[in-house]
Amino acid sequence: MKTIAISIGDLNGIGLEIALDSHEEVQKLCNPIYCISETMLTWGCALLGKEVPKDFNIQACGKDFEIQPGVVSKESGAYSFESFKQALLLVQNKQAQALVTLPIHKEAWAKAGIAFKGHTDALEELIQSKAIMMLGCDKLFTILFTHHIPLKEVSLHVKKKALKKFFLKLYNLLNIDNIAVLGLNPHAGDNGVIGDEDKKIAKAIKKANKVLQKDVFKGPLVPDTAFCKQNTQNFTYFVCMYHDQGLIPLKTLYFEESINVSLNDKVIRTSVDHGTAFDIAYKSKQPTNVSYLNAIKEAIRLSESH
Amino acid sequence: MKTIAISIGDLNGIGLEIALDSHEEVQKLCNPIYCISETMLTWGCALLGKEVPKDFNIQACGKDFEIQPGVVSKESGAYSFESFKQALLLVQNKQAQALVTLPIHKEAWAKAGIAFKGHTDALEELIQSKAIMMLGCDKLFTILFTHHIPLKEVSLHVKKKALKKFFLKLYNLLNIDNIAVLGLNPHAGDNGVIGDEDKKIAKAIKKANKVLQKDVFKGPLVPDTAFCKQNTQNFTYFVCMYHDQGLIPLKTLYFEESINVSLNDKVIRTSVDHGTAFDIAYKSKQPTNVSYLNAIKEAIRLSESH
Repeated sequence: MKTIAISIGDLNGIGLEIALDSHEEVQKLCNPIYCISETMLTWGCALLGKEVPKDFNIQACGKDFEIQPGVVSKESGAYSFESFKQALLLVQNKQAQALVTLPIHKEAWAKAGIAFKGHTDALEELIQSKAIMMLGCDKLFTILFTHHIPLKEVSLHVKKKALKKFFLKLYNLLNIDNIAVLGLNPHAGDNGVIGDEDKKIAKAIKKANKVLQKDVFKGPLVPDTAFCKQNTQNFTYFVCMYHDQGLIPLKTLYFEESINVSLNDKVIRTSVDHGTAFDIAYKSKQPTNVSYLNAIKEAIRLSESH
Repeated sequence: MKTIAISIGDLNGIGLEIALDSHEEVQKLCNPIYCISETMLTWGCALLGKEVPKDFNIQACGKDFEIQPGVVSKESGAYSFESFKQALLLVQNKQAQALVTLPIHKEAWAKAGIAFKGHTDALEELIQSKAIMMLGCDKLFTILFTHHIPLKEVSLHVKKKALKKFFLKLYNLLNIDNIAVLGLNPHAGDNGVIGDEDKKIAKAIKKANKVLQKDVFKGPLVPDTAFCKQNTQNFTYFVCMYHDQGLIPLKTLYFEESINVSLNDKVIRTSVDHGTAFDIAYKSKQPTNVSYLNAIKEAIRLSESH
């Protein structure tokens, strides 16, 4: 059974509640190690009106502080970062095979003076390896060629060489033989009538497949019909050229189930694809754990295939 | 009961079959006038192995030619354009209240020397009125602020004044009091961190609502969660900044049901949102008529509300 290191996220949010509620099920799938101190766990459980599970394997981290449900705080921000670093360390030291992160609050990190925007860029910096963002669930994964940049800049990145490199790296990390690639423009450019980027995508696909000596990458697909049944029956993995091209259909179809995967060559890391939900934290609102369970399952699957 | 003029589309495609198959149902909703000559109707029915319905009200148009199932032809292109013009004329002469178009083939129009790319721009030119493109079904309508332009050019159009003008025109044509507006960038710009266009959209919304003296337009919505349940429960109409922002979620959710509406101040025109399907024309494949029936219903609804 794989050992999974779990960073507990912002303790003023819903992360701990999800971890506790899911523990029984998670334990059947893997050996979880939760990065949280005994004091914080005991206190969190008290606030939630829950018993501390006897077999809740923890790893101390960070400086204890007073949990304030739903509050953006420097202390909570600092703690969630320490929990993340501790979980990462467990993986780097081979005490765990993968890392699953519960949601942090970006503003709390900023308040704590942490220079990273979130888990994704912190991970890249800490392990010195650029990751590919993949979001989805077992029915549909979208892989983002570009992500948090203004829409008007997307086209500047859609270049043949960069795409080919991205395709080959992705194939190496995913090890999947059938990956769809979307075009950029309406109707995938209508044969060059609407923008010229789709032709570059087509050429990059051809070049990458030639290197791989098999037709792994298919496309460019016309974006607006890419996620119709006909295609989702044939593909699970879709390379999207920009953030909303991938995330609009994903969240439209599978909002609650989705997870976030940082594909890189060093550390397997998956994450829930939702936030700290401060508005419902510690209010007995039973936050959904579907995304969390999917993140655990995908972390196990990826660590088994590597 | 409203009278609806129906242009028959490319007779080498599936249009006639859909019209014949749906006639009984359509007749319960309105008085349809089909723009097709008796010869062409008789011949098409023979090819389809169907009887000519006795109460099939037709209006002659164009030059008869030999139907060749699935073939892009000059004659068929010319005929579908004549059928379209005839149907439009019926509306302009007040013999019909709205126009519903069956699919034409763009290449066939080009072969016939017709200078328009399709119905939408032909209509704009013939009635001298710019239309707003709206696509969808009764569960979800997406309204396109920009459409068939390269993605990299979208940002150039997202200007405060142009948006405000668009919003006011749209409100006039739709007469709906609750319309969602999407942002442009990932996370609707994350407070200006990712591009500055979302702030312009916010200002335009404010200005338009001020003119209308009510909060008709809501947003800008974060694009990737715009079509989640929480929003689709609150909104049916969504203004999208670019083609795929609207059409990806629409086709992902309601591919077969969708229709195309040309919102303008002169002629009510709706259309099926699929093509001529040459591959299954005259092959007893029973093409779906859901989009066609929805186009008829929306044409009736719009003509009743104007």
